[in-house]
Amino acid sequence: MKTRSIFLKMGIVTLSIGFVFSLFACAMYPSEPAAEVEPLYVFFFIGDGMASAQIHAAEAYLAATAKEDAKTGVATAGKLSMSAFPVLGMQTSFANNRFITGSAAAGTALACGEKTNIGVVAMNPAATRSYTSLAEAAKAKGMKVGIVSSVSLDHATPAVFYAHSARRDNYEKIGEALLESGFDYFAGGGFRVDTYTSDTYLTLDDNERVARIESQAKSSGFSFSNSRLEFNALSEDDGRVIAINPHLDTYKAMPFELNRKTENDLTKDYRDSISLAEFTQKGIDLMKHGKYGFFMMVEGGKIDWACHANDARAAIEETIAFDKAVDVAVQFAKQYPERTLILVTGDHECGGLALGYAGLGYDTDFEKLKRQSLAYDDFGRNVLAAYTSSHMPAPEQIDADMWQIILETYGMDGDRLTAQTQDDLTPYEIGLLEDAFDLTMGGNNANSEQENNLLYGRNEPLTVALTHLLNRKSGLSWTSFSHTAVPVPVFAMGHRSEMFDGYYDNTQVARNLAKIMQVNIGG
Amino acid sequence: MKTRSIFLKMGIVTLSIGFVFSLFACAMYPSEPAAEVEPLYVFFFIGDGMASAQIHAAEAYLAATAKEDAKTGVATAGKLSMSAFPVLGMQTSFANNRFITGSAAAGTALACGEKTNIGVVAMNPAATRSYTSLAEAAKAKGMKVGIVSSVSLDHATPAVFYAHSARRDNYEKIGEALLESGFDYFAGGGFRVDTYTSDTYLTLDDNERVARIESQAKSSGFSFSNSRLEFNALSEDDGRVIAINPHLDTYKAMPFELNRKTENDLTKDYRDSISLAEFTQKGIDLMKHGKYGFFMMVEGGKIDWACHANDARAAIEETIAFDKAVDVAVQFAKQYPERTLILVTGDHECGGLALGYAGLGYDTDFEKLKRQSLAYDDFGRNVLAAYTSSHMPAPEQIDADMWQIILETYGMDGDRLTAQTQDDLTPYEIGLLEDAFDLTMGGNNANSEQENNLLYGRNEPLTVALTHLLNRKSGLSWTSFSHTAVPVPVFAMGHRSEMFDGYYDNTQVARNLAKIMQVNIGG
Repeated sequence: MKTRSIFLKMGIVTLSIGFVFSLFACAMYPSEPAAEVEPLYVFFFIGDGMASAQIHAAEAYLAATAKEDAKTGVATAGKLSMSAFPVLGMQTSFANNRFITGSAAAGTALACGEKTNIGVVAMNPAATRSYTSLAEAAKAKGMKVGIVSSVSLDHATPAVFYAHSARRDNYEKIGEALLESGFDYFAGGGFRVDTYTSDTYLTLDDNERVARIESQAKSSGFSFSNSRLEFNALSEDDGRVIAINPHLDTYKAMPFELNRKTENDLTKDYRDSISLAEFTQKGIDLMKHGKYGFFMMVEGGKIDWACHANDARAAIEETIAFDKAVDVAVQFAKQYPERTLILVTGDHECGGLALGYAGLGYDTDFEKLKRQSLAYDDFGRNVLAAYTSSHMPAPEQIDADMWQIILETYGMDGDRLTAQTQDDLTPYEIGLLEDAFDLTMGGNNANSEQENNLLYGRNEPLTVALTHLLNRKSGLSWTSFSHTAVPVPVFAMGHRSEMFDGYYDNTQVARNLAKIMQVNIGG
Repeated sequence: MKTRSIFLKMGIVTLSIGFVFSLFACAMYPSEPAAEVEPLYVFFFIGDGMASAQIHAAEAYLAATAKEDAKTGVATAGKLSMSAFPVLGMQTSFANNRFITGSAAAGTALACGEKTNIGVVAMNPAATRSYTSLAEAAKAKGMKVGIVSSVSLDHATPAVFYAHSARRDNYEKIGEALLESGFDYFAGGGFRVDTYTSDTYLTLDDNERVARIESQAKSSGFSFSNSRLEFNALSEDDGRVIAINPHLDTYKAMPFELNRKTENDLTKDYRDSISLAEFTQKGIDLMKHGKYGFFMMVEGGKIDWACHANDARAAIEETIAFDKAVDVAVQFAKQYPERTLILVTGDHECGGLALGYAGLGYDTDFEKLKRQSLAYDDFGRNVLAAYTSSHMPAPEQIDADMWQIILETYGMDGDRLTAQTQDDLTPYEIGLLEDAFDLTMGGNNANSEQENNLLYGRNEPLTVALTHLLNRKSGLSWTSFSHTAVPVPVFAMGHRSEMFDGYYDNTQVARNLAKIMQVNIGG
């Protein structure tokens, strides 16, 4: 009994001491358990030149061509993956020194949370001080970092995340910054050479200069892939990766989706081409086991290019391809809904696109866009070039061969071949094409220089006259060949996405992301 | 001691019984205290024809004319009241039978949560069944209801809240529905007569028909006011109120803010005019003591009209005036932040406005818009009419008098008077004005009918040519004279405003409001 009593007393004393220690411990380490890493997966999708009109044009085109109530079926058939995001914001895009921004200044705001001047990459307006980007801060924190773009990897929008340059066209220095970034995954387009006189590599020709950057990439610790076979085989064992699409255009960008899809240009075999969605999926596969998660920026870069050329169908296809990449992230987020944040926005609008045209009043007919079989670039560079070289001296008016090309590429009938379609062009419309044809064939039309500048900008005249005409017949119209200052929507879902609600400046997007990722940017 | 013990026991027993009763009471009336009315104040602001471009053009104009960093000062100087709302959404606007909507179909969606056909007012597409609107449901629930519009009170957007009609232009029947609505406050514009042949009042002329409706209004229990003096004196003692602006245009709408502001039209004295903000404030004053609160719809109806005419400055001034009305609600909400919900949206975009023009590339100069001293309507009806009657026969080209008018009204110099300004028009631009002048003076220009239709739509040719030119010189441009399908932002603040986050269809706006107000709509 005595022994038992002693043990009981000891027990009570021990328990009491334990309780006091416990209280003490709780007081010292109040709420949380000892630092357990919570990986965070951040996707930052940027549609270059993409605002509400581009998004809704894609939705309307999908609805019209899906044939589920062609006029009004937008609510169901035409929705994009981004359209279903629960949180929406809207951002203003103006630059430090111009109301209508450019991709470098807008990108700097989105990547670093600070305004800068037109053309400056992730530096202050005077280009004397570098700004820290979200990607750099994420890397410093231990997150994996991926940068994906459908245009060249050294283009303004990807560049603002890893480089600092007074000029966005200093491509080779930007390319070197890419290699020194320490980031884990670069994918999409290739590398360019400077487009202004730079004396660094004057002894080399352009191809040699690109080869130099690429070989440097291989020697600087990256696994380098530029074929479908290599791309498919990429795994976490490959360490840091640069994956370039096997097909690139003159500007080292991925080909337009419209060209890739229709495969109308027989000079190219796009079968092995890799989509933006595939590049996004590969980024997930390579980085998803990072202890601290990852930050991945994915740019749909050619929405902007199509809009500069006022080529609506090409812009729509780029927007849809971009949205498919968004959907890859949405599928991934189902695994980690609490720890994934997906943000989709544009850097600025481009072209002043509207879903409505004076000539049609309240009508639209988006299905007509389906007739277009080539984006402006391949039409201008290949089809027109072939026609020109086989038609010397140039005919004074559009001839039967050219009308045939117009019918095959844009589905518009000039009334000179047949009168069977309902879409014969009017004399006024034929006049517009003839004016453009004159210029394209190296002649002069009767218009003033100012009028021709309004009609074509710096685009290939006949190409833009044709897309203008087809766009307008479908109910889409443009006000500019440049960017505009129309505000840009922000779609957000997942971890702390509610922070992106409301109407704010583009710098706020990056600042919110920095808060969520618990990093410091700008500076 | 004994007594004390008995009292103690009794106390314990009493407490126990009390406790059991309390438990019983709690079980019977579980959570809430007995019905205490919580008034709810709902503001529904609809900017007709107002989407992101109209809003940002107003912000940019305010920033540019405030001179606080004219090019990029949008972030601070140029913000509107609605711009600061914490919640943002975006809505698609398509009608049941057309992709580009009209105000009746869009209004029906916003008021009743259901799609309908173009021109139908708060009925199903076949116009065989009425939809219940938010305003009707609010009234039935006991809330006070106010309907305010800067256009006539029987116009499509106000009408969808209280009338049901197969045709929106059946103004007199709609006006009668207004009088029978039982609503508490109607304010802004006046009453119109049918614009199609209706045999109801064929024996009366238009003025008599308007007088008939107005006298009916007085005899049907409304306090009727159409002067500044009467308006100022209106109080809760006046019961149900119809308050019409002392100045109305041909269409019984309030005058354009731009005309009211500049007072350039000396044929009118706008000093006693009442603003949309004042009408909104009066609505609050008259309805704020309603036991169940109130529902007030306020329409900025002439943003749309200015956009149809492609008159940017007029649209901007209407947007600013609309926003001042929004700010009245914002100030009211400070008293009852938990019980006030403010919603601001548009019914559709109009004009395909963009902040960017091909002729200026990346440049803008919004300050130039300040030169315009009259909205399109007063210019066309008064200034041009006076010129025409004093210049017979019409000159073949724009003469010195007309150049003087153009300089005074739009600040553009035709180079025929002086060469002192930097804004002399180019020969191409003068050619555009001469083409329009020909038509305005009743002649023919050399353009095809199709081209003239694209240039002027159904607008007065010289007027729209002048606003086009001034807009473009400022960096604003249009694609259409009709509505467009560009998605429309939704700004929300206050009680359950978070429900309006995301990207949805316009019907969802009304459905969310119905949920919040706990009423049934549509049907």
